[in-house]
Amino acid sequence: MPSETAYDLTAGLRGLGGGRVWSLMISLFGDLAQGEGDTIQGPVLSAIMAALDVRPEAARVALHRLRNDGWITSTKMGRISHHGLTPFGRLQSAEASPRIYSTPDDVPKYWQLILLETPEADAQSAAIEAGFVQILPRVFVGAETSEPPQGAVALQGTAAVPDWLRNEVTPAALREEYALLEKALSSLCDALPLAHTPSPTEIAVLRCLVVHNWRRLVLKHPVVPSALSRHDAPAHKCHVMVADLLARFPRPTLDEIEQDQAG
Amino acid sequence: MPSETAYDLTAGLRGLGGGRVWSLMISLFGDLAQGEGDTIQGPVLSAIMAALDVRPEAARVALHRLRNDGWITSTKMGRISHHGLTPFGRLQSAEASPRIYSTPDDVPKYWQLILLETPEADAQSAAIEAGFVQILPRVFVGAETSEPPQGAVALQGTAAVPDWLRNEVTPAALREEYALLEKALSSLCDALPLAHTPSPTEIAVLRCLVVHNWRRLVLKHPVVPSALSRHDAPAHKCHVMVADLLARFPRPTLDEIEQDQAG
Repeated sequence: MPSETAYDLTAGLRGLGGGRVWSLMISLFGDLAQGEGDTIQGPVLSAIMAALDVRPEAARVALHRLRNDGWITSTKMGRISHHGLTPFGRLQSAEASPRIYSTPDDVPKYWQLILLETPEADAQSAAIEAGFVQILPRVFVGAETSEPPQGAVALQGTAAVPDWLRNEVTPAALREEYALLEKALSSLCDALPLAHTPSPTEIAVLRCLVVHNWRRLVLKHPVVPSALSRHDAPAHKCHVMVADLLARFPRPTLDEIEQDQAG
Repeated sequence: MPSETAYDLTAGLRGLGGGRVWSLMISLFGDLAQGEGDTIQGPVLSAIMAALDVRPEAARVALHRLRNDGWITSTKMGRISHHGLTPFGRLQSAEASPRIYSTPDDVPKYWQLILLETPEADAQSAAIEAGFVQILPRVFVGAETSEPPQGAVALQGTAAVPDWLRNEVTPAALREEYALLEKALSSLCDALPLAHTPSPTEIAVLRCLVVHNWRRLVLKHPVVPSALSRHDAPAHKCHVMVADLLARFPRPTLDEIEQDQAG
């Protein structure tokens, strides 16, 4: 069990109520066991889920669902179950990882504006799928590295960007959720360093909470190139803290967590 | 009097019905007598106006109006009146001349797109006054050489421009008028060269008709940078023919016309 201290520190993140247990479990497997052949032992998974405040019954239901949906496969060796991502689950995790684990320095610097020929729904969808943010029926902005949809006129972004444009690009629907995450992450960061060296399990739990709450927001909108993002906005501040925390608490190996639990 | 031939050739241009007589007279003075101290003698002016199919009474009324509005000043020397632009009239003519007399090669090559913060009327007016063409409530395009209004984001235009954007930039309201002018200019150009060398007065009349009918359209919309203009559109074809005709028939001096009339 994690010490009172580490558990207390992550109360804010646990309190955000980030969606369903199966989703939290995907965050956990994606962070700890994305490698081919990686598995988490049943007792280790139970201990981590307990530390995440998930009741055993809820954890069992989530695991069942993920097996049915083809995300996770379980094999019994002796009396112990070993749970791992399926090839499908690994692929999904791998596709999301660059966005989740990129640091603020990895974010594309430069931007572009695209003008569509028509405001038709199909054309708008193509632009959104290509990773652009809509600001007018026929006008979108995005990272310079994004491929504009066929037929659009694409103009290179300027170095200087006024705040009103940055504000338009900030994902408005997620503003409040980013503000709540910023608050939780700030309290956590402010309380660091921990009084004692955290155990591998404590680190796994902390990382899972950080990754999970971050992933829920960041994957809901296209990447905002740094020239267009407000560095004083919660979304950017969250990104900085997430990257700092994940670097400060490197991913423990599954062996380390197993030994921690066995000891 | 101009020969039948030259007179016939300009029938198409006279037939376009380009506005009021006072406006035609401004085109004439702007083309022939824009220099400081330039004046047109009464009998010469009457002869040219007659060749332009303007009745003497209509010419007198127009001249009266232009004097009242401060465009033209008349002085009597002996029995002959001398009519010339006032400083105000010369300034107006000088301001319009670059646009009227520029050749297609003078037109700015490159373009820019500007995005306004708001679609408010004031902001739109500022963009239009700065020489930009509106394509969306907050989006305008114009020559790279135009100064964007304060606060707008200005993006450099691309080298490749799709036809749909060129079509949006073509002054739609003037499309039909440009088509009519193209037809008149084409018939004139097709009938060249003239069977005889035209007299200075014939050239003055021909130039006046070309300048007048061109000026009435081109001054009604901002300059369209060549990257954005359709070279197969009437507006561009008119520009090419106007520039060719004005180069082919250089402006006669006032002395040459006077001698022509006296002879």
